[in-house]
Amino acid sequence: MHELRKDPLLNRWVAVMADSKAPGEYNLPDDVKESGCKLCSGRESETPSEIAAIRGNGSRPNEPGWQARVIPSANPILQIEGELGRKGIGMYDKMNSIGANEIIIETPEHNKKPEDMGFEQVVKIVTLYKERTADLERDSRMRYILIYKNSGKEAGAIYSHPHSQIIATPIIPKRVKEELDGAKQYYAFKERCIFCDIMREELRYGHRVIFETKNFVAFCPYAQRFSFEFWIVPKRHSCAFQDITYDETEDFGLILSSLMKRLGAILKNPPYNYIIHTAPNRIPRRDHWHTLGEDFHWHMEVMPRLTRVSGFEWGSGFYVVTTSPEDAAKYLREV
Amino acid sequence: MHELRKDPLLNRWVAVMADSKAPGEYNLPDDVKESGCKLCSGRESETPSEIAAIRGNGSRPNEPGWQARVIPSANPILQIEGELGRKGIGMYDKMNSIGANEIIIETPEHNKKPEDMGFEQVVKIVTLYKERTADLERDSRMRYILIYKNSGKEAGAIYSHPHSQIIATPIIPKRVKEELDGAKQYYAFKERCIFCDIMREELRYGHRVIFETKNFVAFCPYAQRFSFEFWIVPKRHSCAFQDITYDETEDFGLILSSLMKRLGAILKNPPYNYIIHTAPNRIPRRDHWHTLGEDFHWHMEVMPRLTRVSGFEWGSGFYVVTTSPEDAAKYLREV
Repeated sequence: MHELRKDPLLNRWVAVMADSKAPGEYNLPDDVKESGCKLCSGRESETPSEIAAIRGNGSRPNEPGWQARVIPSANPILQIEGELGRKGIGMYDKMNSIGANEIIIETPEHNKKPEDMGFEQVVKIVTLYKERTADLERDSRMRYILIYKNSGKEAGAIYSHPHSQIIATPIIPKRVKEELDGAKQYYAFKERCIFCDIMREELRYGHRVIFETKNFVAFCPYAQRFSFEFWIVPKRHSCAFQDITYDETEDFGLILSSLMKRLGAILKNPPYNYIIHTAPNRIPRRDHWHTLGEDFHWHMEVMPRLTRVSGFEWGSGFYVVTTSPEDAAKYLREV
Repeated sequence: MHELRKDPLLNRWVAVMADSKAPGEYNLPDDVKESGCKLCSGRESETPSEIAAIRGNGSRPNEPGWQARVIPSANPILQIEGELGRKGIGMYDKMNSIGANEIIIETPEHNKKPEDMGFEQVVKIVTLYKERTADLERDSRMRYILIYKNSGKEAGAIYSHPHSQIIATPIIPKRVKEELDGAKQYYAFKERCIFCDIMREELRYGHRVIFETKNFVAFCPYAQRFSFEFWIVPKRHSCAFQDITYDETEDFGLILSSLMKRLGAILKNPPYNYIIHTAPNRIPRRDHWHTLGEDFHWHMEVMPRLTRVSGFEWGSGFYVVTTSPEDAAKYLREV
């Protein structure tokens, strides 16, 4: 079984795979091999059995007729069965690699990007994100649910078929904890949500805003890490993505599909990642994170991968932005 | 002038370049263009004037005859002239992009890796690292000096000529501050240096140790981020790299050149980064970081870049290791 290990210095967890790859098994840089795509419609029998799907009338699970589909990962990092088994080993900490890895297949056709199929397709994907998050949150072993998308091999994608992923982890990941802590600290100081304040500041200033809809604002953050990075933040204060309403889901699909089309147009379909940061699981947990309702605010971060991360960033956590967020927002707004 | 901006949520600084690149100027993934290498011996007049060098008898600055050479970066992120000018702007913080960026040219010849030229060449490079760090530390505007190397375009290298870089920053970078805080916390709890404890634990257990010399231990860390990552830690407790003795410098050159040869052999010259983490600047500063003498311990982290970082890692700070550190150490030990 894979194992989770904790870095004693940085309190960061890593997953160490049970069967080590030999040095010769690393396919260096340029090769995502794909011999026929199993995520395409018509090859349902070759994937693990589906967990959820949005399907046309009359079509049956694990058969064609779906518009978007969720399957378990074929090579999961975390596995759903078992106990956490957290323990010390010498001066170190470890636990079993318990959790869930799911793949959201975003379209039945290999070469269709969801944003080019009309915003309704993106609404279906967001609906599946919501359903799966709400379902996984019920597992008391899970502390966090992360939705993310890798598009393009430079962004770490393992399939070229449009897909995104959900991972449920038995710990609150370090990067999330930093955001939670930062937001909590700001709230303690100001008694206001930092995301609400940032959103107001951005709308007042205007130059970093790409556009807004009834329920969402999209802007390039003031101190972005990646050139052309942007965030989508809901106007209604809410800590949990899965509490999104029906109206908001439609509106989120609209703004997300429009932004992805704009990004693809100005940067010629760049590799990118996006992630949704939501509060840690609330059910059935009732611990100190439960106060997060007021000080955290769910949002999506979209990160185009236009340059390579170097030793400078790895060593410092300090990033260099070659297109200012003000200019990036202008390009994305005016395209 | 470029500007430094602070993320209000994560307290991370980023550098925003003054002249924004347009979307069409991003050379996507595969192209490091190099029309003749200016770092090669014989083209000294085409580089900025050298800051330091190790030269054969009788050779003069900015002429051939050098064995290793330091020049200012031609496209610096941070510039050496000016005031910090730290100020607020709305709810945000910024300052001028003050600092230093230097390039260490590791060999006069383009196609010779320093580790293949005998460990004496690596000793020369380490000597320049030490000299430059000691010199830059005297600038009271600088808080931190980071030495790093990018080798291979997948690791962010902008030249294919062997080189490393030094950057001096007016803030303590986030990633470094996390390490300092982690080490301080451990020290408060145990009254021992965490790096000394880790080194003892690794030597006791043995399976993650690659090898040791008189003054250094090289091992794959228990919770590594990157497969085949390893650390080189000095046996003598010392917070500052630039306090390395003459004997230790020789020994460090020896262990580093041996390890880089091993890494190159088993993984066929993979892209990699390395960084040196040392204490923040002590001169002329006398603030709370000054207590670091006891709780921090300088070291080098070497990170092969065998897989691509995806939305999962960006969103979570959680890494997946596909070759266990025990197996990686065995490969590196036995090659």
